[in-house]
Amino acid sequence: MARITEHYAKLPGSYLFPEIGRRVRAYQAAHPDARVIRLGIGDVTEPLAPAITAAMHAAVDEMARRETFRGYGPEQGYEFLIDAIREHDYASRGVAIGADEIFVSDGSKCDSGNIQELFSLAARIAVTDPVYPVYVDSNVMAGRTGQIGTDGRYAGLTYLVGNEANGFQPEPPAEPVDVVYLCSPNNPTGTVATRAQLEAWVAWAKANDAIILFDAAYEAYISDPALPHSIYEISGARDCAVELRSFSKRAGFTGVRCAFMVIPKTVTGVDGEGKRVSLNALWSRRHSTKFNGASYVVQRGAAAAYDPAGLAQTREQVAFYMENARLLRDGLTAAGFTVFGGVHAPYLWLRTRDGATSWQFFDRLLSEAQVVGTPGSGFGPAGEGYFRLSAFNSRANIDEALARIRKVFVHG
Amino acid sequence: MARITEHYAKLPGSYLFPEIGRRVRAYQAAHPDARVIRLGIGDVTEPLAPAITAAMHAAVDEMARRETFRGYGPEQGYEFLIDAIREHDYASRGVAIGADEIFVSDGSKCDSGNIQELFSLAARIAVTDPVYPVYVDSNVMAGRTGQIGTDGRYAGLTYLVGNEANGFQPEPPAEPVDVVYLCSPNNPTGTVATRAQLEAWVAWAKANDAIILFDAAYEAYISDPALPHSIYEISGARDCAVELRSFSKRAGFTGVRCAFMVIPKTVTGVDGEGKRVSLNALWSRRHSTKFNGASYVVQRGAAAAYDPAGLAQTREQVAFYMENARLLRDGLTAAGFTVFGGVHAPYLWLRTRDGATSWQFFDRLLSEAQVVGTPGSGFGPAGEGYFRLSAFNSRANIDEALARIRKVFVHG
Repeated sequence: MARITEHYAKLPGSYLFPEIGRRVRAYQAAHPDARVIRLGIGDVTEPLAPAITAAMHAAVDEMARRETFRGYGPEQGYEFLIDAIREHDYASRGVAIGADEIFVSDGSKCDSGNIQELFSLAARIAVTDPVYPVYVDSNVMAGRTGQIGTDGRYAGLTYLVGNEANGFQPEPPAEPVDVVYLCSPNNPTGTVATRAQLEAWVAWAKANDAIILFDAAYEAYISDPALPHSIYEISGARDCAVELRSFSKRAGFTGVRCAFMVIPKTVTGVDGEGKRVSLNALWSRRHSTKFNGASYVVQRGAAAAYDPAGLAQTREQVAFYMENARLLRDGLTAAGFTVFGGVHAPYLWLRTRDGATSWQFFDRLLSEAQVVGTPGSGFGPAGEGYFRLSAFNSRANIDEALARIRKVFVHG
Repeated sequence: MARITEHYAKLPGSYLFPEIGRRVRAYQAAHPDARVIRLGIGDVTEPLAPAITAAMHAAVDEMARRETFRGYGPEQGYEFLIDAIREHDYASRGVAIGADEIFVSDGSKCDSGNIQELFSLAARIAVTDPVYPVYVDSNVMAGRTGQIGTDGRYAGLTYLVGNEANGFQPEPPAEPVDVVYLCSPNNPTGTVATRAQLEAWVAWAKANDAIILFDAAYEAYISDPALPHSIYEISGARDCAVELRSFSKRAGFTGVRCAFMVIPKTVTGVDGEGKRVSLNALWSRRHSTKFNGASYVVQRGAAAAYDPAGLAQTREQVAFYMENARLLRDGLTAAGFTVFGGVHAPYLWLRTRDGATSWQFFDRLLSEAQVVGTPGSGFGPAGEGYFRLSAFNSRANIDEALARIRKVFVHG
């Protein structure tokens, strides 16, 4: 008898994005002429930068010739990409990261879903609420939680509530936890942690011997030069923090697939006998046992995003999306919305109108403005009453979405 | 205190391929003029087929234009690839597989490492010995075993010994197990399961309500048309078998990264309450929570391997490697070796000479013939006294390796 895991069944049946897809399809079926504008899922829309496609073409040509063909690559990633990451993402900001502290992967969703494997099933996990669902679901699936309660919270997880009072940047927990997931700039709220807030997190982690899993997938969207892009800009973080980075939003790689994780050798956990173990060594073992490296062609494309031309071109894309965000933010504010985020992140987090729940607001926006967003409650109970809009779209669609929303909520 | 998993520490420190690398580097350092020929790791050497690189170039061009740019794709894989798989790998052999029974991924190493997550930690796992190490290690890391014994075996795992008497195709276990990993054509022994043997496995799985994880990564190397390429060519397999396939060896994708898994909806496990649960639904949840699809450019390349030109070109590559295998097999046999495999697989499995252990033979072949292979004991205790050679190399290197081996063992 093939006994299956008992933990997957703890997850609610309908996951956020499939449910959104279902409702949009039903609306489209009933209104075949409606032109729905999608600001829901955070997916880029601008084409790959010319410097990146040129590098990918060159890499494909290398794979076509026996002399330059590449088979299995180093599981941690190619040196040319790791060196570019070290120089441009870290050394340029005064942070020294070793080549063997960087692990290239095929995506941050995989990294953020897999990293929990390094911890004991007894480890206490803290997440913010609202939160990127992968952090929670991957721990539920591994068996680190009990059942979900009527309040939408899993037994055994520590929830740190983000709300308007704390600017959606909750403080470290009072109770002891082993591991905390942080995301800044934040998905879904679009808010960003200040240097002082990150310092408080690092101080807490060091004082409590806890580990911070710092998801910086949106760091390229930070517009204030005073804000840290990496947790390692905070003194002491090399002892307690793992950092996740992605090319998805920084270089338009959602369909290309490349990301990386930084695990300083000085970050340690404690085994059953109280022995200190390097997380870097554990992840290296995990990476080389269950992963075979990211595609060579993809890694060449990612490295090109650090070339002078690639940097300039991808920065222009980020600026384009951030101008979308600014337009959305200003337009929605003028339309009477209370808006968070959208300054250092491509996401806007709105309070719903007229006391609507997140899903009621979703349905109203879809049916009255033909605009799709993401219900805040899909990111956790504390997201109820909020709504996420993404700035990834064409300028024409952003303008049109704003005009429609204005028509419903201002002139409606 | 960040408590880490207690299971990774059960793995022995030095993994097979890093240890091989270490010994080869040491030899090269001491003999800088030696030209070492590597027949160790099973990595392809022929460049990508023209049909594949043309499709990848076209896909990169699509990514360069706003109108044809692709962001996040379907997590299960693009329809164009899934349809090609269904038609060419299954319908053409009389097997009906649904589009939603195929899951495209970035590699079979990931799939074979991750699939164990679907099973209870109490599930009893059977592996063959010798075996592809990922099956064992991923279960050790998850906590399904105890410590490794002095005999090289983990407590709690069931080992099915392959030896000369059974042609390295062990029979189903007598004791009850939940899950068995099978690999045919086999890595490392290069032997292949007959139809009758697969029928016996399916009958056993159905009688015992067990699940077969069938790794067919090397099916393209089968040369006898009477042999099944898929476990689903066996009646009843749709109820009890998951199949893993890869483009790595079939289309030279070791550096490109693409594979897929077939999970028929009729394959079920049993949860803690005795309820039947579809493995397809569990994997779909796992795939959509922890994975974001394989790279679009890569999937276009994989699909081109099914086009008429791509099929012809990749079949020619397989034939080239299999001619290498034939030369190795004939040459080694003539040199007095006892050789298994190499007829339906790109691997040859040799008995060592003069009673040498696998590592003693490795060292002798390296120092006397400057040829690198893989010690059989690295694949499990039953591999002791055997040695794996791979047929992936240029014809000139295969000829040269054979000449050197002949010199050592015939004229030496």
